[in-house]
Amino acid sequence: MPLSWETLLQPSEGRVRGSAIRDLLAVTAQPDVISFAGGLPAPELFPVDALRASFDAVFRDEGASALQYGPTEGHAPLRAYLAAQMAARGMHADPENILITTGSQQALDLLGKVLIPRDGAVLVEAPSYVGALQAFTIHEPTFLAVPMDDQGMLVDDAAAALAAARTLPALLYTVATFQNPSGVTMSLDRRRALLALCNTHGIPLVEDNPYGDLRYAGEAVPSFRALQGGEDAVYLGTFSKTLAPGLRVGWVVAPRPLIDRLVMAKQGADLHTDSLAQRAILHYLQHNDLDAQIERLRRVYGERRDAMLAALARSFPAEARFTHPEGGLFTWATLPEGCDCRAILRDAVQARVAFVPGDAFFADGRGANTLRLNFSHAHPDRIEEGIRRLSTVVAAHMRQPALQR
Amino acid sequence: MPLSWETLLQPSEGRVRGSAIRDLLAVTAQPDVISFAGGLPAPELFPVDALRASFDAVFRDEGASALQYGPTEGHAPLRAYLAAQMAARGMHADPENILITTGSQQALDLLGKVLIPRDGAVLVEAPSYVGALQAFTIHEPTFLAVPMDDQGMLVDDAAAALAAARTLPALLYTVATFQNPSGVTMSLDRRRALLALCNTHGIPLVEDNPYGDLRYAGEAVPSFRALQGGEDAVYLGTFSKTLAPGLRVGWVVAPRPLIDRLVMAKQGADLHTDSLAQRAILHYLQHNDLDAQIERLRRVYGERRDAMLAALARSFPAEARFTHPEGGLFTWATLPEGCDCRAILRDAVQARVAFVPGDAFFADGRGANTLRLNFSHAHPDRIEEGIRRLSTVVAAHMRQPALQR
Repeated sequence: MPLSWETLLQPSEGRVRGSAIRDLLAVTAQPDVISFAGGLPAPELFPVDALRASFDAVFRDEGASALQYGPTEGHAPLRAYLAAQMAARGMHADPENILITTGSQQALDLLGKVLIPRDGAVLVEAPSYVGALQAFTIHEPTFLAVPMDDQGMLVDDAAAALAAARTLPALLYTVATFQNPSGVTMSLDRRRALLALCNTHGIPLVEDNPYGDLRYAGEAVPSFRALQGGEDAVYLGTFSKTLAPGLRVGWVVAPRPLIDRLVMAKQGADLHTDSLAQRAILHYLQHNDLDAQIERLRRVYGERRDAMLAALARSFPAEARFTHPEGGLFTWATLPEGCDCRAILRDAVQARVAFVPGDAFFADGRGANTLRLNFSHAHPDRIEEGIRRLSTVVAAHMRQPALQR
Repeated sequence: MPLSWETLLQPSEGRVRGSAIRDLLAVTAQPDVISFAGGLPAPELFPVDALRASFDAVFRDEGASALQYGPTEGHAPLRAYLAAQMAARGMHADPENILITTGSQQALDLLGKVLIPRDGAVLVEAPSYVGALQAFTIHEPTFLAVPMDDQGMLVDDAAAALAAARTLPALLYTVATFQNPSGVTMSLDRRRALLALCNTHGIPLVEDNPYGDLRYAGEAVPSFRALQGGEDAVYLGTFSKTLAPGLRVGWVVAPRPLIDRLVMAKQGADLHTDSLAQRAILHYLQHNDLDAQIERLRRVYGERRDAMLAALARSFPAEARFTHPEGGLFTWATLPEGCDCRAILRDAVQARVAFVPGDAFFADGRGANTLRLNFSHAHPDRIEEGIRRLSTVVAAHMRQPALQR
């Protein structure tokens, strides 16, 4: 991973994972581009006034102590609040099982540091959340990337990957509910089978659940930690999708000895998470109805999901498939083999519409014919217009001679 | 570093670096203990009202955008402000040379990730900031720990360590001004010689400068980046000691290709630093007089330093030496060989006074007869009483038979 100092003093020529998405975000800042590229919540739904009041109340009531160094584990009353929340969802957790992190992205970084050894391996979904791949890549592990269908990770394929692997994976990472990028939710049967597989082999199962509250259809599926035999599963939560991502407050639920190790790693990473933001979020939770806020998100995002799925059904080429997520922020399209979504993106940007090419989400560079579409950020009419533009570009690519053979 | 999942599910028996300080902080929360252990700024000096007004103004003027995901590099206007600040101190920096970090602790974590290879080495002061040792330890480097005198790191010893080293160090890390833990400031001649040594060998020089503004005596010494030949030196700054540590906002100044790599690492670490805190700090800087705030800190901390040095001169055993820092938060005492400061700490806590045993700050476990004393957090009369208690305990230890031989 590290380069020599001399190399670092030269302008970099290389491309690294994630930079495709970064370059895109630059383009999509132009207001005439309809962007399905980001993973941004809709800012008009942030509870700005309520959070403003909570920050002000913390300044008024807690003053300097909210600005001082705080414990690495996190603000104790917030940990207690979250422990009760977790218990209400069937996940046993004492406050000591909870570590507050600087967004759930930091939890991925810390888990990588604590769990992934040199020359280790990790089991991930294919496709998987690109930020997790980035966080783990620093340890240069072997990625065992297991395919999914519309019920989630294929457990038989996971078992086969384990049987063939030279090293037992250091962890299994899953976004089991409304996955980023695919929008797929893992079925209960699949969860039970995957948990049993992990328990048999002694592999830590890490469930990242940023989107679970954002359900627009169907029935909730329990988290691994709420299943029989799931008491030691690791769970990642965040306020980024329900309150506001800019504050960077998330949490990990894990067995205490693992929490102890994560706390040590966090000391070296950033000492502790923003004291003021933790206290202000706790104040918000104690003085507002988070469920009502989530209900509002569900209604608006649900409409946007419906608008996108309807537009795709109407104008996307018939040969293309796309997922029908019951929640979350994303749908995922698969074009015929041979389509090159990076080339499509270049033309799409010309047509003032953007998305993320799917290959960024595969640990092994597959997925050239796939793409991720975000539906939470744009208004329904913009979604309709954007899918119309995109469909035209995709259809033109599918008429290219190379794909007619 | 990683343990097996089964091991992690067992209660941990081992002690890890930093836990001594953590256990201490638990004891020192008791109000009758006079603690010189922490590195805490005095909360009564935080500009609570001004920061409260700045947070409220950002909510009012920037609303939802202050709560949304932000760029990994940091809030652009804050980067521009800091670039101008750096230039005013003789350090060339464009906004593109600046990355906002989640406290300067995160900068240490990111630099470790980007610069330290497997089986690499790092050059540090002995003693050194324990948080840097923690951040680097995850990469299991060889620590080349170079002794200091009252002018800072001994450059001849550094050159000898380089000559003897099997691998060229991946970086040199120094807290050159009012060092944590020793309070020592590196002289200008020593800085020039050290910079020349690093440049000759192509070793990145990382200067961590959290305390530079807190000078109570003597003349400012320029940063490495402001010296001839120091244009590529890395500089770490923070608002933790001038404004408030709880907000976790710091910055790195570095050559652009290194910034590019640090940005990639930060994406995996926490995506970006708290958007709201960055904007509120910028608002504070634009609408308040930071220099007046720093002047206030200097006056109060200067009095506390004077109180501690006077109390040590008055009541500490004559055989003990201690440093005379011109600024910062700490002084450092060296007891006669054979003294065991961990044993002294146990008795000190009984006597209701606390400090940090110095061996925590050595990469190689030296320093059993040293200790760090913080003078920024307690009032002068408490400092006097605390040093009186501590002197009694130290004197009793020095009378022990083992030390009379």
